[in-house]
Amino acid sequence: MRRRVFEVLEGGTGGPAGRLFVAFIVSLILLNVAAAMLETVRGVDARYGEALDAFGAASVGVFTAEYALRLWSCTASPRYSHPVWGRARFALTPLALVDLCAILPFYLSFLFAADLRSLRLLRLLWLSRLLKVDRYSEAFAMLWRVVCRRRDELVLTLTVGAVLLVISSTLMYFVERDAQPRAFSSIPAAMWWAVQTLTTVGYGDVYPATPLGKLLGGVVATLGVGMFALPAGILGSGLMEEIRRSREEGRVCPHCGRPLEGPSRPPPS
Amino acid sequence: MRRRVFEVLEGGTGGPAGRLFVAFIVSLILLNVAAAMLETVRGVDARYGEALDAFGAASVGVFTAEYALRLWSCTASPRYSHPVWGRARFALTPLALVDLCAILPFYLSFLFAADLRSLRLLRLLWLSRLLKVDRYSEAFAMLWRVVCRRRDELVLTLTVGAVLLVISSTLMYFVERDAQPRAFSSIPAAMWWAVQTLTTVGYGDVYPATPLGKLLGGVVATLGVGMFALPAGILGSGLMEEIRRSREEGRVCPHCGRPLEGPSRPPPS
Amino acid sequence: MRRRVFEVLEGGTGGPAGRLFVAFIVSLILLNVAAAMLETVRGVDARYGEALDAFGAASVGVFTAEYALRLWSCTASPRYSHPVWGRARFALTPLALVDLCAILPFYLSFLFAADLRSLRLLRLLWLSRLLKVDRYSEAFAMLWRVVCRRRDELVLTLTVGAVLLVISSTLMYFVERDAQPRAFSSIPAAMWWAVQTLTTVGYGDVYPATPLGKLLGGVVATLGVGMFALPAGILGSGLMEEIRRSREEGRVCPHCGRPLEGPSRPPPS
Amino acid sequence: MRRRVFEVLEGGTGGPAGRLFVAFIVSLILLNVAAAMLETVRGVDARYGEALDAFGAASVGVFTAEYALRLWSCTASPRYSHPVWGRARFALTPLALVDLCAILPFYLSFLFAADLRSLRLLRLLWLSRLLKVDRYSEAFAMLWRVVCRRRDELVLTLTVGAVLLVISSTLMYFVERDAQPRAFSSIPAAMWWAVQTLTTVGYGDVYPATPLGKLLGGVVATLGVGMFALPAGILGSGLMEEIRRSREEGRVCPHCGRPLEGPSRPPPS
Repeated sequence: MRRRVFEVLEGGTGGPAGRLFVAFIVSLILLNVAAAMLETVRGVDARYGEALDAFGAASVGVFTAEYALRLWSCTASPRYSHPVWGRARFALTPLALVDLCAILPFYLSFLFAADLRSLRLLRLLWLSRLLKVDRYSEAFAMLWRVVCRRRDELVLTLTVGAVLLVISSTLMYFVERDAQPRAFSSIPAAMWWAVQTLTTVGYGDVYPATPLGKLLGGVVATLGVGMFALPAGILGSGLMEEIRRSREEGRVCPHCGRPLEGPSRPPPS
Repeated sequence: MRRRVFEVLEGGTGGPAGRLFVAFIVSLILLNVAAAMLETVRGVDARYGEALDAFGAASVGVFTAEYALRLWSCTASPRYSHPVWGRARFALTPLALVDLCAILPFYLSFLFAADLRSLRLLRLLWLSRLLKVDRYSEAFAMLWRVVCRRRDELVLTLTVGAVLLVISSTLMYFVERDAQPRAFSSIPAAMWWAVQTLTTVGYGDVYPATPLGKLLGGVVATLGVGMFALPAGILGSGLMEEIRRSREEGRVCPHCGRPLEGPSRPPPS
Repeated sequence: MRRRVFEVLEGGTGGPAGRLFVAFIVSLILLNVAAAMLETVRGVDARYGEALDAFGAASVGVFTAEYALRLWSCTASPRYSHPVWGRARFALTPLALVDLCAILPFYLSFLFAADLRSLRLLRLLWLSRLLKVDRYSEAFAMLWRVVCRRRDELVLTLTVGAVLLVISSTLMYFVERDAQPRAFSSIPAAMWWAVQTLTTVGYGDVYPATPLGKLLGGVVATLGVGMFALPAGILGSGLMEEIRRSREEGRVCPHCGRPLEGPSRPPPS
Repeated sequence: MRRRVFEVLEGGTGGPAGRLFVAFIVSLILLNVAAAMLETVRGVDARYGEALDAFGAASVGVFTAEYALRLWSCTASPRYSHPVWGRARFALTPLALVDLCAILPFYLSFLFAADLRSLRLLRLLWLSRLLKVDRYSEAFAMLWRVVCRRRDELVLTLTVGAVLLVISSTLMYFVERDAQPRAFSSIPAAMWWAVQTLTTVGYGDVYPATPLGKLLGGVVATLGVGMFALPAGILGSGLMEEIRRSREEGRVCPHCGRPLEGPSRPPPS
């Protein structure tokens, strides 16, 4: 019985029940994040604030129960088999600490009679619990590996981009300073224009007004399309290479996110 | 005679006449879609409304005649050879039902004396009939296959993008809340800024005003160029791979959209 | 002598003199295009209008002299050796007709006492004469070949993009019609918003105002980044493949734009 | 002793001390650049101006000491071993001249009793000293090699882009001239719109207002996404190829930026 509970709570290795449990926890996290964000809207808060708070409290209860069950059942694992020291060691694993940090503030607020409302946005931190789900932790680990592998390319383009940013904002500061003393009052202010232009966002709150400034702006925008779009291409090709490699090495199953045992390709005889 | 009509109506397999018929139907659909959209312009409606309505009514007539002919001639096919049950089975195929749903509302509106004008925009649904043309159904099927094949990459980038969206809008909400209480009144409101910035659309109705907010905005815009441009690269390379594979397998002729019999490459001897 | 003049005028095959001549003609065309554009600026016209007109007239003179010299020297070529019929046939080649069309209007304007000023912008048409220079004609021919080769991919993405445009503008029309009856007065008006959003230009003259509209706008912008950036990736990879193929086949020298004789790679022995 | 000082100052070849010294100099340069930019902000200047000026003066002192030490220790190198002529030859190397030009103006300003404040922005030129650090000089050299290798592709796309710019701004000038005589007063003014649209920056200070202008604007924006994004793809793929080639040839160590001795791959036996 304890063994079965532990397997289900670990998720993914507990068969259909484990997968259902993971889906339930993920939905609960996402719904709480959505609720925490919606509560910042005045109208929503006035109408549904109490219901959303109740939902939040219920979620804290669920996560508390989950934490307690995990602590109770962890002795089923040979690594934490001792009734006291095994549980203590389990409670000090990073993932269990993340769990504790997510629920503890709500209980502390009762102790110190603090307002529960001020803790609402803390629920956004529950997003970090998604990292406990293999699928998501693997996704971020993969992106991280791609960034590490393409480090040279990314550092190179970011260096060139930073130099481009400094040069274009300095030039634009001198060109537009007299015509628009407010929008281009300083080099950091001109940098706000430059970053908008190089990334092609272009809000339109600052833009050059003089003919020379417009010429410079056109050149900077064209260079920006070339330089700031580079990282996307580099990351994209790196990502596809990494996923191909992962599939070949069988590091992760692309459908359930669990690590696989061996290579999916038959070994060359 | 009946066999010939059936082949022509099926399009593509009916020689030049069949191809001409497909081109005629496609043009009729596109013109009706354009007419339905133009009729929402007040000036156009006042001037040409009656002519466009007449054109729409004529088109309904054409599609009705086509539907009737199809029903009449389907017995030429061995699959629907029975005069009654074959026709019934043909009428219940998804593509025939799409046809029926496209023309039926116009006849029902006469029965219930409804205003034809309110049905105008229903003609936009005729776009779905394009899926009956091999060329278009194959295009969407190919895109769908690419999305399925690159599912892992797309899910990964969308997950990272969603997390980036939540984090950047939450941070910006706290940074700009006091300076711009209207534009950044809540996290969902800040999200409208974040999605504009990450996709580099930048309408300019909301943008950070404080120095810290501008710094954050610049970082988010730079990250956005990197993360939100990833799906395009992934889809693009997947699309080119898929088309190469299709050509080699002879799944579809790239010029007429019809499925081919065998591989276009000579088999290795 | 006549042979030498012909070779120089043909450009590229006339040694250093021919290359110098091509550079001179190209500069003259570009300067005239710049002059024609600058003359539309009121201030520039008032100050330098006469000087620019004089420069334009001198350029017409140069192109007239070049045309006359070409007509005189073309008999040096074996293809146009007959003094009368050879010259007539040369004058009827497309490139010679382009030359004639570029200079004739200026003489006709004198005949009919028309104002030379109204002909100024005709000089923009001289850009088409750049196609006579191998380097430029080869560049456009290469781009054209890429477009033809990637026709399927481009047609597919444009079809999907068009459908996306129709769907998103129709949905946005219904969502925003009541809140902004002017900006989203009709589906074509909503299309102006949709095309700005899908291409991520985002001028900011129209944007959704209702929460539902903003949600839809965010989804459309995200899809736009994915779909409308596809053609760039497709064209880019096609272009690089085409240039690699050209270099291997020796179709064009990458430095001077002239066709080469044989393959640059040694033939496999 | 002198030998050791020379090795440390040369950076990278002097072991951990040399690497620490390079990191110190790079930080000093970056901090001075940041200080020079921040001093253009009125509020920052009023408050921290004197402290930042003192920091700048101290940095000039550091760079002077570094220059003097370099000049003193350069005789340790066999190339500059002569006490007088060796030092003179060392002082005339480009990198030593860059050093001198960076510090000399500050001493000259004392001689001529000029205001130190007007020299503040000169510190931005110290960015060029980063080129003395192998890592940065190698990054820019690599980008330059990519641009050279992909010269044909870049020239082709820039040519097509320039033609697209001229054509779209000329057409828009004629279409919008009457409706918006101020924003589209001349072709160069329309060019400012065209460059914003083709690069998808879209500040929103100029945009078409007539239906025909909006149609043209949509087409130009779609073409712009296709054409102006091409250079990014070309540079990106070229960059990754170049870095792969560098790694294989062992031209540069990807972690410390120093040139390596031999190929990192074992030679085929």
